Amino acid sequence: MIVWALLTSVGINLGLCLLFVTLYSVLRKQPSNLEVYAPRLVAAKEGSGQKNGFNFERLLPTAGWVKRAWQPSEDELLSVTSLDAVVFIRIFIFSLRVFGFAGIIGVLILLPINYLGSQLDVDFDFSDLPNKSLDSFSISNVNDGSKWLWVHFCAVYIFSGVVCYLLHYEYGYISSKRYTHYYSSKPQPHQFAILVRGIPVSSGSSCSETVERFFTEYYPSTYLSHVVVRRTNKLQRLTSDAEKLYRRLVHLKSETKPQQRSRCDGFCGLFGRKVDVLDQYGKKLENLEDNVRMEKLSVAGKEVPAAFVSFKSRLGAAIALHIQQGTNPTEWVTERAPEPQDVHWPFFSSSFMKRWISKLVVVVACAALTILFLIPVVIVQGLTHLEQLEMWFPFLKSILKLTVVSEVITGYLPSLILQLFLSFVPPIMIMLSSMEGCISFSQIEKSACTKMLWFTIWNIFLANTLSGSVLYRFNIFLEPKKIPGILADAVPAQASFFIAYVVTSGWTSLLSSELFRLHPLISSIIKRPFSGEDDDEFEVPSIPYHSDIPKVLFFGLLGITYFFLAPLILPFLLVYCCLGYIIYRNQLLNVYAPKYETGGRFWPTVHNSTIFSLVLMHVIAIGIFGLKKLSLASSLTVPLPILTLLFNEYCRQRFLPIFKDYPVECLIKKDREDQNDPTIAVFYDKLSTAYKDPALMPIRHPRSTDDHNLPLLQAGV
Amino acid sequence: MIVWALLTSVGINLGLCLLFVTLYSVLRKQPSNLEVYAPRLVAAKEGSGQKNGFNFERLLPTAGWVKRAWQPSEDELLSVTSLDAVVFIRIFIFSLRVFGFAGIIGVLILLPINYLGSQLDVDFDFSDLPNKSLDSFSISNVNDGSKWLWVHFCAVYIFSGVVCYLLHYEYGYISSKRYTHYYSSKPQPHQFAILVRGIPVSSGSSCSETVERFFTEYYPSTYLSHVVVRRTNKLQRLTSDAEKLYRRLVHLKSETKPQQRSRCDGFCGLFGRKVDVLDQYGKKLENLEDNVRMEKLSVAGKEVPAAFVSFKSRLGAAIALHIQQGTNPTEWVTERAPEPQDVHWPFFSSSFMKRWISKLVVVVACAALTILFLIPVVIVQGLTHLEQLEMWFPFLKSILKLTVVSEVITGYLPSLILQLFLSFVPPIMIMLSSMEGCISFSQIEKSACTKMLWFTIWNIFLANTLSGSVLYRFNIFLEPKKIPGILADAVPAQASFFIAYVVTSGWTSLLSSELFRLHPLISSIIKRPFSGEDDDEFEVPSIPYHSDIPKVLFFGLLGITYFFLAPLILPFLLVYCCLGYIIYRNQLLNVYAPKYETGGRFWPTVHNSTIFSLVLMHVIAIGIFGLKKLSLASSLTVPLPILTLLFNEYCRQRFLPIFKDYPVECLIKKDREDQNDPTIAVFYDKLSTAYKDPALMPIRHPRSTDDHNLPLLQAGV
Repeated sequence: MIVWALLTSVGINLGLCLLFVTLYSVLRKQPSNLEVYAPRLVAAKEGSGQKNGFNFERLLPTAGWVKRAWQPSEDELLSVTSLDAVVFIRIFIFSLRVFGFAGIIGVLILLPINYLGSQLDVDFDFSDLPNKSLDSFSISNVNDGSKWLWVHFCAVYIFSGVVCYLLHYEYGYISSKRYTHYYSSKPQPHQFAILVRGIPVSSGSSCSETVERFFTEYYPSTYLSHVVVRRTNKLQRLTSDAEKLYRRLVHLKSETKPQQRSRCDGFCGLFGRKVDVLDQYGKKLENLEDNVRMEKLSVAGKEVPAAFVSFKSRLGAAIALHIQQGTNPTEWVTERAPEPQDVHWPFFSSSFMKRWISKLVVVVACAALTILFLIPVVIVQGLTHLEQLEMWFPFLKSILKLTVVSEVITGYLPSLILQLFLSFVPPIMIMLSSMEGCISFSQIEKSACTKMLWFTIWNIFLANTLSGSVLYRFNIFLEPKKIPGILADAVPAQASFFIAYVVTSGWTSLLSSELFRLHPLISSIIKRPFSGEDDDEFEVPSIPYHSDIPKVLFFGLLGITYFFLAPLILPFLLVYCCLGYIIYRNQLLNVYAPKYETGGRFWPTVHNSTIFSLVLMHVIAIGIFGLKKLSLASSLTVPLPILTLLFNEYCRQRFLPIFKDYPVECLIKKDREDQNDPTIAVFYDKLSTAYKDPALMPIRHPRSTDDHNLPLLQAGV
Repeated sequence: MIVWALLTSVGINLGLCLLFVTLYSVLRKQPSNLEVYAPRLVAAKEGSGQKNGFNFERLLPTAGWVKRAWQPSEDELLSVTSLDAVVFIRIFIFSLRVFGFAGIIGVLILLPINYLGSQLDVDFDFSDLPNKSLDSFSISNVNDGSKWLWVHFCAVYIFSGVVCYLLHYEYGYISSKRYTHYYSSKPQPHQFAILVRGIPVSSGSSCSETVERFFTEYYPSTYLSHVVVRRTNKLQRLTSDAEKLYRRLVHLKSETKPQQRSRCDGFCGLFGRKVDVLDQYGKKLENLEDNVRMEKLSVAGKEVPAAFVSFKSRLGAAIALHIQQGTNPTEWVTERAPEPQDVHWPFFSSSFMKRWISKLVVVVACAALTILFLIPVVIVQGLTHLEQLEMWFPFLKSILKLTVVSEVITGYLPSLILQLFLSFVPPIMIMLSSMEGCISFSQIEKSACTKMLWFTIWNIFLANTLSGSVLYRFNIFLEPKKIPGILADAVPAQASFFIAYVVTSGWTSLLSSELFRLHPLISSIIKRPFSGEDDDEFEVPSIPYHSDIPKVLFFGLLGITYFFLAPLILPFLLVYCCLGYIIYRNQLLNVYAPKYETGGRFWPTVHNSTIFSLVLMHVIAIGIFGLKKLSLASSLTVPLPILTLLFNEYCRQRFLPIFKDYPVECLIKKDREDQNDPTIAVFYDKLSTAYKDPALMPIRHPRSTDDHNLPLLQAGV
């Protein structure tokens, strides 16, 4: 890629950005789009009817929203959203600091040194700048054995030190936030409860009796109550079907005219007779309700040997959580209880062995998907060659002969196919994680986040860096000694590709997907005619951490890895980070609402992946200095990854436990506060039913009074 | 090695064994050797004076001791010794079962198949058997691509299954023993206490006050007392010096005649004058006691931010142990308290950081020692070549020319040097482990045990198997793909060496060192004239697990690895195991007394090393089937190591927690027993002083009443 091409690309992208932002500024003000662009506000003000009439100002683009997104302080953001959201924003602040520092060193010091080298380019012809290759700005242009490489060497050391300092600072900062948040929190069910699995039910007594006996005996002073988990998959499905049908029935009754209630039956109405749709629906509902009644009766016997156990104090729950309960470690296995709304009910697979095997299968499936993903993609991409298309669709021949069309097709079709395949991955990862036996959505999301991160690194970074077959790429890891050399040889060659990637895929995809929320918009457009349902199931989305965090961290990896190889990437990453910072602050404020709160448990993933990026950079540096015939610098870089890993180990001991559990000091302080709280008795009442399976709860839509022949849904359990 | 040579070696060794056993049977009956061969009995009957007069029966070898060693049941053994000793004996029982099963398959099925192959030997000449190479009995003799190799393949699968079953059985058996032992135990200080490190002492208050305040606030109902650790290294040295001097003084006073009390002073008595030794010793003692007094005063200020905290219940201690205490995870770090007599006082290095760095340094030092150990050995061995010796000691020339002498020197001197170097290793490992920051002898020994195991595997197994430099051997591990092939090529070639090793080094070293306790005998002979002390410091030794367990496990590794490669090794290993079983049962009953009780915590090490051996065998099997041109069998073996590792993971979840902690169920049952125990108040009193540093205790040897001018040692603290 030459400088001119990059400048063109940057120009186009800046233009697109401006266009997107302008469009957004206008579109977000249209009341009909409110549910897409500000569902949080809609949810908050539901029923207050803010739909004003037409206003000329609605058509003018304004930048007020940027100011409003920028203004709220972190504490205000925390009060409006959740700690998780604040931690997510901290990723951008951290990245801005890292890229800012790297940018100063990289652009002011390393870039001129690279450009003044003559390994690739002998003449310093500044007038010819636009036609220069971007490689002239990368380390490839520095002469072999040049003394200037020592500047790069120093930069690597200083940069690693600064990143480690920033990591340490952020870890400490978020730790303290976590404690502050905990101290200020009201009593919540998950703080007082645990999940017990592998309950050894003896014949002749029920699971519930066994749990009651065990905890009354060993926790007489703190045990409060328990809820045994039941297998309700079938009931859940039936209930939700019944609910949907009921809502449709109500909708039909209230809004449609009598002639609309009948529809064509039989073969396109030729031999059909008009049937009252209402009657038909009513019968269906009756059947469903019979099934629900039957299922509810049978569910009582479908006990899973697992139970949510609540305690009177946080310390009581912590003791039961941390100390092995029974003599057999695979029985009475205790786990932290998720928040009640965070429980993932369908996957309470019963036995220890079954859960263990399913975890294993998921790991294998995920590894296979990650490693082999590109094979079908490449095959499908291979089918889209011009000749192939011409053979399949002869009538396109004349159009395909146009240069513009053929360029677009050969240039964009393969990447479009890749993007299409890629868009299937996050849901697959979520599905795999939920099959792993995770009991909460937050656990599923965290696990899927890690999976996506590895998937992205393998399939985007390594696939683009290491040419050759999948097997070849895999083989590299079987010969650890050669890794630095191979990476050093391959990585800088891809610098210009990744610079272009950050500019195009980074900026525009961030803006299009996050600012315009294209995905939800498209999916709602697709969904509406198919489901034939009304929009009364309006839901505020929660931020998809499992796909957003890996995306952001991947750009962090690029920034850290390419910092000394091709510093030109840094200004573009800075722009990306700034955009991300504003846009995500704006969504968090308007769009996303937290569905659960992990208390910033995502941060260790961010920390670990930054350490990974640093060590990757060090390995490449060792290889580069070797290739550039400066073996002393290469050897002197070896201690750096070791020191970084030691720093990581230190952080793991100093901070990681804070993200796992709260200490006795906190627990007892909060417990003592509760003792003086007059509302605690009310809370205990709430606590004992908090972990009831929603499928066993009374249905949410009470029937209207004229439906006296269908009393079941109203009666509930 | 040919069959005849092996038979000769076996003959000689059997003869030696018989001789050793006969000698032992006679020697053990001599009253003067009682302290060496049965120190346990001496300790038990001290003062009862069983020294009978001469008896002719004393000179006749009898086998009664074998019967006496064999007879006691496991429960009897447990009551006499400790659970650790029983677990140690279980290693032999487990090995006997494994080698027994392997022996049946190996000798009856695999050995004939190997011998009937014709890869190395074309003719089946049975008359020439004594001159056949041992390789004819190994898998090397099976023809390439032979269908008989499938029998080996099946044997590997069946054997792995049986070993895993036995492992599972033993793990379960020892787990149940551990619980039984715990339920039957009396209240012991270490069950009620924890060690707290990293106490955040604020200025203006002492460490003791901080601990008192913290635990009174957060554990008001269960906290009992605490003892702050002080830096007493200097005091310990001074006190022990003073004690020694005092004992010598008493000894001199009571037993020697007046003319012996004076000795030669000055330069060989030429200008010397006779000085009363008693006066000299008395002055020295006075000085020492002054120092002790000074040090005791200053020690009060030398608080280490660590304390032993005792609780009123086992559950109280477990809660404090398992839940993070303070908001900073590197402060108030809790650890299981060792038994009071097991505490290793000198190494209470203060800060978290310091301990962490020292651990790191030890890991590096240990790895360096393990990897580079053979370099100096080989250099020193190189210096003992005949020419070198002749050059250094010209007068030996004529003797060295004798064939017998030169053969002995070239054959035995290098291995003698290796043995000499090897004998330094266990103490070094113990030293390294104690520098790691372990706070108890049992921890040190466990850590040294693992270090020794790796040391043995690397330096004896790999050094003998993989020829070439250290660097070459290390390089293999950087190319994991080639490992099976390299091992398959190298390991069978060393089969006859290891068969000879088991017969010679195994049998005779076991008998000589353990039966005759040569090491303690020699060291006591060496020590006595140098120390000039009396034997009144008689101590019953405790079993050196750190050197004995690795030794035994190494033979287990050989048995498992060579099971299908060269089944001839199995009968000899069976003999080794039987010998070990009898001999160790006999030392446990007569010689060794437990110094501490870990409750069988050594077993997971045994389990892990067996799994390692199995996987090593599988890797070699994959390589061998590949080399023998039976690639299908090679591929079909691949799932076996994976299944074995999964089995290991299952055991880790099912059994390992049992070896770490006792569950709530046990703790509360024992606590409730105590509540009904009238002696518990007395125990609490004992508990609060159990963890006092022995250096701060009053001295053990009260002075005789006539030493009224030296009152300090009597008064103590």
